[in-house]
Formats: sequence, C-alpha cells, structure tokens
Amino acid sequence: MIVTVIGLGLIGGSFALDLKTKKIASKILGVDNNELHQKEALEYGIVDEIVSLDDAIKQSEVIILAIPVDSSIKLLPKILDSVTNQLVFDVGSVKHDIIEAVKNHKNRKYFVASHPMAGTEFSGPKAAFRGMFKDKTLIICNKQDNDPKILEKAENIFKKLEMRLLYFDALQHDMNVAYVSHISHISSFALALTVLEKDESNIFNLAAGGFESTVRLAKSSSEMWTPIMMLNRKFILEVLDTYIEKLMDFKRSIRLKNPEEITELIQKSNDIKRILK
Amino acid sequence: MIVTVIGLGLIGGSFALDLKTKKIASKILGVDNNELHQKEALEYGIVDEIVSLDDAIKQSEVIILAIPVDSSIKLLPKILDSVTNQLVFDVGSVKHDIIEAVKNHKNRKYFVASHPMAGTEFSGPKAAFRGMFKDKTLIICNKQDNDPKILEKAENIFKKLEMRLLYFDALQHDMNVAYVSHISHISSFALALTVLEKDESNIFNLAAGGFESTVRLAKSSSEMWTPIMMLNRKFILEVLDTYIEKLMDFKRSIRLKNPEEITELIQKSNDIKRILK
Repeated sequence: MIVTVIGLGLIGGSFALDLKTKKIASKILGVDNNELHQKEALEYGIVDEIVSLDDAIKQSEVIILAIPVDSSIKLLPKILDSVTNQLVFDVGSVKHDIIEAVKNHKNRKYFVASHPMAGTEFSGPKAAFRGMFKDKTLIICNKQDNDPKILEKAENIFKKLEMRLLYFDALQHDMNVAYVSHISHISSFALALTVLEKDESNIFNLAAGGFESTVRLAKSSSEMWTPIMMLNRKFILEVLDTYIEKLMDFKRSIRLKNPEEITELIQKSNDIKRILK
Repeated sequence: MIVTVIGLGLIGGSFALDLKTKKIASKILGVDNNELHQKEALEYGIVDEIVSLDDAIKQSEVIILAIPVDSSIKLLPKILDSVTNQLVFDVGSVKHDIIEAVKNHKNRKYFVASHPMAGTEFSGPKAAFRGMFKDKTLIICNKQDNDPKILEKAENIFKKLEMRLLYFDALQHDMNVAYVSHISHISSFALALTVLEKDESNIFNLAAGGFESTVRLAKSSSEMWTPIMMLNRKFILEVLDTYIEKLMDFKRSIRLKNPEEITELIQKSNDIKRILK
C-alpha cells in the first residue's frame, strides 16, 4: 500500500516511520513546502520520495494531512476534489471547522476526521520518532459521515499502531481538548513569558523538575498553535476565563493571608488524583 | 555518625535512606508526630528507631529538620536551645523567615539554612526513595552566619549525596524560587481546579501527556504548600501578578482574533529554550 504524508513534521513524520516499520505501507510519498524538511525527511528515511501533491494523490491509497489546522482547512477541499476512493485523514487538534469546510463536498465520505493525542513539544522531521502512537488515544469525529469501508480502513491502520480509539462529535471534541490540551499550552507559554520577563540569571540556574514539567510545552511552535487558538477560540476563551478566575482565588487568599482558604483550594485541586494515576 | 531526621516524609525519608545507603550515617533516629508515619518509617527501613525530640538531639551529631516551613520556624529555636555543637539543617522552600526566627540565637551558627531542589508531587514515608538528591541543586543561604566547621560538615554530606551546591542570600533565594517553583505549583493547582469544575467524564478519559505534565504538581500536599504561600507571600504575589497579566495578553489577542499578536507571544515564550535544554 502506498501512503502519502502531507507535512513531514513531528506527527506526519512519526506516522510515516511507524507505517513503514510495521509494514502497513510499502512506500511513503512525502509532500512538503519546506525544502529543508524535504531534505531531512529523505535523509532520516522518513519518506521514500518527495513528490508533488497531484502525483501523490494519484499514486496513493491513503493520504495523511499533517499540517497546521488552518492550512489543512484550505487544502482538504482541493484534495477531496482529486480523490476517487482513497482514504484521507487529518491529525489536527481542532475538528469542527475542518469538517464544516467539506460538509457539502461530494467526497466528504472519504475524509476521516482524526486527532491522535500524541506528540512532544518539538517540531520538524528530526523530532519524529517510532512508537509515538502506541497506547495513545485517537479520536475520530463525526464517523456517521464516512463511507463504512473507508472508516474501517482508517480504524485498521490506527489499531495496528496500537492506538485506543474514541468517537466524538466534533464540537464535543473541541470543547474537551480545550480543557486537556489547549489550556495546558497557554498556561506553559504564559509561565515562560513570566520567567523570561524577570530575566535573572539565577532563575535559569535553578530551573528544576517542577518548573521543567510545567514549562516544557512552551517550546511548542507558533505555526501549530496560533491556528489552534484562532480556530478553537470560543472554547479556549471559556477555559481561560475559569483558569484566570482560579488564579485570582489564590491571589486573593494569599493577599488576605487566609491559610484556611489556601488549604481549601489546594485540597480541592488534589482531587485531580481521580484523573491522573 | 548518628543522624536524627525530624519529619519522616518525602524529603526527610529520602535523606534518611541515602545517608544510610552511602554509609554516611551509622544510625538514623526518627522523630515524627504522626504515628502512622512512625510505623511506616520503621517498616520501610527508613529509620532505626523512633525516639523523642530530646533524646534525639542528645544522641545525634546531625539533626535534619524536614517538616513544613511554618512548623520548622516554631521548632528550630527550641532545637538550637538544646544543641551543643551539632549540625542542624532544614530543607524548606522559604528561607528568609526561618533565618529571621533565630538570627539572635546564641547557637545560630550551628544552623545551616538549606534547600534541596528535589522532590516529587507525592508525600509521606512511602514516597521517599534512594537517589532523590543525585545531581540536584542544594542552595545554602547566608553561609556567613555559620561556624566554618559546621558549614563544612553540611557541605560534605551534600557532596557525598552528589548534589550541586549554590550559595544565596535568603531573600534572593526566596524571590528566585517563587519564579521557578512556587508559581509552577499554583499554576498546576489552578489548572486542576479549572478542569475539575467542568467535571466532564470525557475530559478524564482524554488526559494526555501535555496535560499530565502541567497538572501533576496539583497532587502536592496543602500541609507543605499552604505555609510556603503564606511565608513567601510577597514574592509569590509579584510573580502571580505577572503571570495573570501574560494570560490576559493571550486572552485579549485570542478574543480580538489577532494571529500576529498570538504568534508574537508564543515566539517570545519559545525563548525558554535558553533555560530548558
């Protein structure tokens, strides 16, 4: 089976590596605007060939769209114009708008709206690695719009990569990821900005475990994250409002020297142990 | 050498285990108000004996104070009343107030104000583990107030545990840890509260890597953290103000649909790569 990966970054590159290693794909065709990424993807054995988008679509049985969400929304209708019966899936972190963009397309049924909840804070082909998706969750949205055979083909690929499948409505997905992923990133970006503004060389010396884990996401790229914040604006603003409110609760109880209130806030938050093992 | 550990939790327990394993201590005496912790510490081989505070001080060459910072401030003067030429060190995350509490004590010179920047989000004797301090930073504050021989004794212990030593003024320490540790914890507590308030069962299903790393500190105990927030109030409020301001910057640029501003904020925050490898 020949597979095309459009966008040879962290996620696209890791899909390419796993599909080849697990012999799901016999050949990987790569499409990327970035010449350095093209070169690196060939060099690291991520793709077998770099081809044009048109050639890629003609030759492939599966097309993976792994570019920033705003670019995916623009490109997907054009890809669907050219497919005959191929499977196309994306990997984006916002789902409502991309589904909206093709909802009346004659080939809508060939597009499986997918979100693998996997990744790191690094980007580009050199960040790609084998085994990224093992035991991770992949969310498929609005599966009722898919051709059953195409959906099954996508599910089989994800299962061979040892992913756990969940099925969501697109808006329900977008709300949920605002809470478990998007806000974590904004929290990290803001924390990094706070520390960088102080610019005390000792702070840099002291960066320890707790700091590292809360700030590491601030290395994430704006190419990926600006479009996510723009497209998932509504839910992100809702979460951000609650988050700032909770921080204000801490601020008030610290300012008023109220240890009972601080303790109550911390103990309530400890309840997160229900979610995280 | 006989060593007393007061407070047999995560940090005190881990010191006890390492001092014994590395044969720095021949015997560890444990002091703890909590009967369950006493029992667990004996069971897990963390201490050889549970004794009263008075007995412990009489028999020991080194006394480690590993209880919450507010309790340390109350107990330290009493311990110094009884020492003759023993080394006493604490492990607290706030340093100005504890040094103030004994600044005119006749035995001030025997107290080495220490802060090992190590730990996890778990607590109690069962959270203690060997090797916690290896390659971690330990900050000694206001060393000019110490008896040189006592200071050297403390430094030798820390070096045998393979820690990297830094020397700070107490207020400089308190400001720095507000930025690299205390704000990370408040950020996590608030994030946990935000998600828990939504209480959507799907959110719990989706908790993935990025979420886990930013929220794990929210498991930390109020026994330890309420006193830290009370005592380091001034610096914590300063950091918290800046942090909330940065979040408001994100909120405004998302609300106004301004991708250039979002990108600028993210790219500035990416500069954290200078600090974190």
